Amino acid sequence: MKKTISGFSKLSKPDKVRWVVEQFFQDPESAEGELISFWHRDEEQQRILDGFSENTLSNYYLPFGVAPNFLINGRIYAVPMAIEESSVVAAASSAAKYWLSRGGFRAEVISTKKLGQVHFSWKGEAQKLRRHFGELEARLRLDAAHLTANMEQRGGGVLGIELLDMSHLEPDYYQLKVSFETCDSMGANFINSVLEEFGSTLRIFVQEHPAFEGAEQQLEVIMAILSNYTPECIVRASVECPVEALAMGPGDPMSPEEFVRKFAKAVRIAHIDPHRAATHNKGIFNGVDAVVLATGNDFRAVEACGHAYAARDGQYRSLSHCAVEDGRFRFWLDLPLALGTVGGLTRLHPIARRSLELLGNPGAPELMGIIAATGLAQNFAALRSLVTTGIQKGHMKMHLMNILNHLEATEKECREAVEHFRDKVVSYKAVREFLAMSRTEEGKK
Amino acid sequence: MKKTISGFSKLSKPDKVRWVVEQFFQDPESAEGELISFWHRDEEQQRILDGFSENTLSNYYLPFGVAPNFLINGRIYAVPMAIEESSVVAAASSAAKYWLSRGGFRAEVISTKKLGQVHFSWKGEAQKLRRHFGELEARLRLDAAHLTANMEQRGGGVLGIELLDMSHLEPDYYQLKVSFETCDSMGANFINSVLEEFGSTLRIFVQEHPAFEGAEQQLEVIMAILSNYTPECIVRASVECPVEALAMGPGDPMSPEEFVRKFAKAVRIAHIDPHRAATHNKGIFNGVDAVVLATGNDFRAVEACGHAYAARDGQYRSLSHCAVEDGRFRFWLDLPLALGTVGGLTRLHPIARRSLELLGNPGAPELMGIIAATGLAQNFAALRSLVTTGIQKGHMKMHLMNILNHLEATEKECREAVEHFRDKVVSYKAVREFLAMSRTEEGKK
Repeated sequence: MKKTISGFSKLSKPDKVRWVVEQFFQDPESAEGELISFWHRDEEQQRILDGFSENTLSNYYLPFGVAPNFLINGRIYAVPMAIEESSVVAAASSAAKYWLSRGGFRAEVISTKKLGQVHFSWKGEAQKLRRHFGELEARLRLDAAHLTANMEQRGGGVLGIELLDMSHLEPDYYQLKVSFETCDSMGANFINSVLEEFGSTLRIFVQEHPAFEGAEQQLEVIMAILSNYTPECIVRASVECPVEALAMGPGDPMSPEEFVRKFAKAVRIAHIDPHRAATHNKGIFNGVDAVVLATGNDFRAVEACGHAYAARDGQYRSLSHCAVEDGRFRFWLDLPLALGTVGGLTRLHPIARRSLELLGNPGAPELMGIIAATGLAQNFAALRSLVTTGIQKGHMKMHLMNILNHLEATEKECREAVEHFRDKVVSYKAVREFLAMSRTEEGKK
Repeated sequence: MKKTISGFSKLSKPDKVRWVVEQFFQDPESAEGELISFWHRDEEQQRILDGFSENTLSNYYLPFGVAPNFLINGRIYAVPMAIEESSVVAAASSAAKYWLSRGGFRAEVISTKKLGQVHFSWKGEAQKLRRHFGELEARLRLDAAHLTANMEQRGGGVLGIELLDMSHLEPDYYQLKVSFETCDSMGANFINSVLEEFGSTLRIFVQEHPAFEGAEQQLEVIMAILSNYTPECIVRASVECPVEALAMGPGDPMSPEEFVRKFAKAVRIAHIDPHRAATHNKGIFNGVDAVVLATGNDFRAVEACGHAYAARDGQYRSLSHCAVEDGRFRFWLDLPLALGTVGGLTRLHPIARRSLELLGNPGAPELMGIIAATGLAQNFAALRSLVTTGIQKGHMKMHLMNILNHLEATEKECREAVEHFRDKVVSYKAVREFLAMSRTEEGKK
């Protein structure tokens, strides 16, 4: 069939690029040249990057920036952020600076429990399995000892093993729900290896144990895998100050009292209304994911966990909270975060390694605090814009400048465009047309 | 204060890099050199990338690869994916190939409605506002006409405006809930501009309209902003074939019937159990986000929307579904996706532009289908691994190769390491120690 291929993954990288550009691009030479121009100049470095994924043709560049002046638990950080969306780093920086003179951020790790599950089918009496659970647990731990020994030396390992009878929801369905401490690693590989081992121990246990007979000896492991939903691997970031200290100085659009009233209302709305909550939390994750990415962590895991947590009481709600009591403003965020500062890509990706160095090579709990504080800062800045000036003024100007940049506008054209688009929606087409027209007029002079 | 700074954003890029490395790095020269080595070689190109964000020091490279052989609605695609996690592109490719010979993917856009909200406080009778809503709506549309004219020409614009009385949840709280059609653009800037305009019209309306008096003339707009939760901007991707066609050929670990039984059970478990659902959906987003990123779209928006949607019935559940009826296997994914193929970074980021070209420059609805199909493919591949061989075998090997690469292992050392780690947990430290030991032994010979 046209445009299909067998054995693509076995081609060399240049051959992969060649096949793709020849099949799918109008101008293969130019596409190939551009893809190659994004390769790292050092071949060895590029080889390492290519090893992280498969069928690589090039690199996707995300701007890598920093938000300086973050005071968290008494320590100053410049927070590394990898993000393609404008205003995010600027907003984090501005909130960091704002809170720097108001006591900074406090971050507190509440707990660091990771989870995994062995899902299995078994036809028998749950009570019987429970009766022998002590024996089973000992056997599970023993059989996995070769996998857990290193983690135990580092202070982690398997915390607890629970047997859950889920047969009221699905016939014959049971679970081993296992909790883990994985120290400074995210622990996915460790957890999955242990769980797969648990799965085979489980099968063998009912086969060999004299208490089980006939159909009871058949146990089918459906799957064994970590859970990305870790509500007990959680950190709280907060800021707090007297209401009057929220004043922003001369030119303030509103009084601190009025600001706090609107701000608190905006947070309550995000608690009440899922349509607002999704956007509110999306803003938090703008900050969170940028640091998660920059430090070589997995943002899909962090997103799935955070949003599932936001829906834990049956309605999808805001992850941040606000309270005004006795003249004090408090704003905080509870965020479940399963992260690593060792393992995975954290030390393998050269920029992730530099990000961690920039943060003073934190352990996972410290990184949890930094990331939650960045999410809270982001949320504070977004809400502040929303309840004061609105967000469009800043956004549109930046988007306009990006387009002007792309179209290689002169400084004079940029000034004129900013003036022209003051009350218009910025789009690529509109800006191109504006430039074309002003260039034609310029030509006529 | 040490390590804090004023006016950082105003520094030149080299000065920003210099300040950061001098403040935070043990070896500033080497950090600076490494950050700079990730700059694009073409200064103009780099300037465009730097314009997307703020305080940039360098670029964060994500491997950019393709999953070929995707047959979606009768057309062949090589799907661009930007992702740092190993196995994701390989899994998408393998599922694409698998379904290529089984009828491919079907994708159907169910609707494309975007949403936004003007949140406001008003002390008055809801009925009174309702009575004049017709007039208000006409005025809202009129005042925003200069913003909506272009979008209307493209076939989009404001679809509907609803007034919601939310005062039972929060005193004096109302909403304008506005729906939009934004054609091939994600529409964030358009929607936010229109909503901010609506906000000011709303304020003026109650002030000037003769029907409103006293406190009724005071209306406070809390905020005006799009909603990232767009359950009616949604696409369905599906695959379907006779059960017996699921056979994978010789060496198959299980019969098609057994496979389908376990597969369907795994999907049901993700429906029943939020701990499994988060991981299940995380796998879907591995595929989704990789294409979202590669095409210059906003993965935070897509994640927030998708996970909020997964929790819509009061429990967080699987986004994909499976049915076996009359000997046919069906597997599908309903995914709300607010995307653009024009606007934002889609045409500004050079690799995003190439991604769209690679896909044949689709419109937004076509891209929705491609992305949902990739998410479904990812989910299919992950579940297939989980219910057959487990995922660790593949994962660990890849992770091991990454570490070996990083430590510049020879081919012989790689072979030995693969052998050695067959039954051990792979960690950076363990691999380094293994290599050190085998190198010492080698030295002794």
